Amino acid sequence: MSDAAEPATAFAGARVVITGGLGFIGSTLALRLAELGADLLLIDNLCPDYGGNLFNVAPIRDRVSIEIADIRDVRGMRALLGGCRYLFNLAAQTSHMDSMTDPETDLAINCRAQLTLLEACRDICPEARVVYASTRQIYGRPHYLPVDEKHPLHPVDVNGVNKMAGEAYHILFHDVYGVRATALRLTNTYGPRMRIKDARQTFVGVWLRAVLEGRRFEVWNGTQLRDLTYVDDAVEAFLLAALAPAAEGAVFNIGGDCLRLAALADAVVAANGGGGFETRDFPAERKRIDIGDYYADDTGFRELTGWRPRVAAAEGLRRSLDYFRTHLAEYL
Amino acid sequence: MSDAAEPATAFAGARVVITGGLGFIGSTLALRLAELGADLLLIDNLCPDYGGNLFNVAPIRDRVSIEIADIRDVRGMRALLGGCRYLFNLAAQTSHMDSMTDPETDLAINCRAQLTLLEACRDICPEARVVYASTRQIYGRPHYLPVDEKHPLHPVDVNGVNKMAGEAYHILFHDVYGVRATALRLTNTYGPRMRIKDARQTFVGVWLRAVLEGRRFEVWNGTQLRDLTYVDDAVEAFLLAALAPAAEGAVFNIGGDCLRLAALADAVVAANGGGGFETRDFPAERKRIDIGDYYADDTGFRELTGWRPRVAAAEGLRRSLDYFRTHLAEYL
Repeated sequence: MSDAAEPATAFAGARVVITGGLGFIGSTLALRLAELGADLLLIDNLCPDYGGNLFNVAPIRDRVSIEIADIRDVRGMRALLGGCRYLFNLAAQTSHMDSMTDPETDLAINCRAQLTLLEACRDICPEARVVYASTRQIYGRPHYLPVDEKHPLHPVDVNGVNKMAGEAYHILFHDVYGVRATALRLTNTYGPRMRIKDARQTFVGVWLRAVLEGRRFEVWNGTQLRDLTYVDDAVEAFLLAALAPAAEGAVFNIGGDCLRLAALADAVVAANGGGGFETRDFPAERKRIDIGDYYADDTGFRELTGWRPRVAAAEGLRRSLDYFRTHLAEYL
Repeated sequence: MSDAAEPATAFAGARVVITGGLGFIGSTLALRLAELGADLLLIDNLCPDYGGNLFNVAPIRDRVSIEIADIRDVRGMRALLGGCRYLFNLAAQTSHMDSMTDPETDLAINCRAQLTLLEACRDICPEARVVYASTRQIYGRPHYLPVDEKHPLHPVDVNGVNKMAGEAYHILFHDVYGVRATALRLTNTYGPRMRIKDARQTFVGVWLRAVLEGRRFEVWNGTQLRDLTYVDDAVEAFLLAALAPAAEGAVFNIGGDCLRLAALADAVVAANGGGGFETRDFPAERKRIDIGDYYADDTGFRELTGWRPRVAAAEGLRRSLDYFRTHLAEYL
């Protein structure tokens, strides 16, 4: 472990900006940072196709600043970064399918806005620690398992290309300008506050919604391996990354609990205490951008920060279903 | 060698579009394709900071179509791709320094316009063979030498990130939509028609200009290894790539003659029959984005197509100096 500061004290009173702060992971991070006494500014465009939802931050709404702003708005963003000590950069277009039907929007958000945001950081908060939410999608179909950070990058959709560029800008701005950026390559993150309206964040959301509504869900193929990260574990990774000096300029995989999709589907039904699913072939239009088996080697991040995932899938799914059972109407 | 068609006959009468067709490599490719009887459309924005120069195509000006258009103009580009059988996609912002001072322009050309151009290809000339001019810059500082195509990508400037994305779009559009694209990762290409006004294309241009004007030039460090590709060899690589079915969807390094920069400087002076240079330390602002030694392993392309570089540096420099001695005023 590094000599990093402890999350319990490091964020108290510190100005923390979260882009995508009303989204799934961003809002969960905000809830945790509010507990830790951070001075929070949440930026979100609340685009209906993305994950932002004001209800996500209902418990802390009177204790945080919220700006409904778009990271594509260069001037707006510059005005919001004053005094920022930690920037958690999670705003993104996350849908793989949308990136193929509307590649320009994906590029504007995941590529161009990242570049202008980093330019703004460099000018306005050059000392800020920046943690960028990257994705395992940039690896494409794994050549070997588990996938470590040296695995070649071969994105299989426009979203993957643009996220690859977005990550590379962060590392470049570290190397050239000293921007204190770290990138975390996330895998399937799930939990309370995720988008369950459709599959734009992950297929898990659709499954959760189906069992809660008493409908059967579809499992495509079912044999693929995926690792799932419970959102609290992902949030802890963001906090630890921000506090580890040795993480500056580096890229880390974040993994989780590894299951075959059929086993995960069984776990969803078990956690719900009922429900069912059908297994079918991959739809043609998704097959072209599917990546087969994936699970991450996240040894690098574990060794540097002491992080490890603490919530197994069975428990994480139970917590997720408890949350959505109570608040379902807010997410449909 | 593959069962590819021969350049000598394959292009006769075929509609060939070259973006960046008035630039250094684009115009040299056009001259060669005009010899081979192609029906040529050259697209160039003639931006004064880039390599486009109408004089480059003076010998074939009455035999080719020229459109002064910008690849960022989506509708304009769509109108120009009708009937295209071969698209050589060379239009780019190539200056590493400019990409740092004006990253947005680099992104608009090297990233966004590539994406919209590929969308246009997919719609308008889905059967066209596409060859994209990529760059060794995307590897960053080599981890090992020679650098093969499996080397990790770690671009050290904004231009490198955007070219990496531009290349990835081409391969993605092949994998997902069947666009018949190949990417060639070029190293330092030099020869007649290159930009010598400044170092925006390569340092070699500045050296050639200096000796022609009787001035001493500067060599930074001098010990670095670089491989240099004479432009006729690069042009041959583009033609062979376009004709090799097995090259579709693939990425290849293109190398050349490998020298230390001090030896190259000596060769420039020798080829000119006079001149001199000074060796100095790397300027601070360039050092941050310098990559150290580089030379390519281009075995993959050689084995697939039978290509090999035919013009050694001494001969290539002599031909270049002969050209610019006669036409210097057109390039200043």
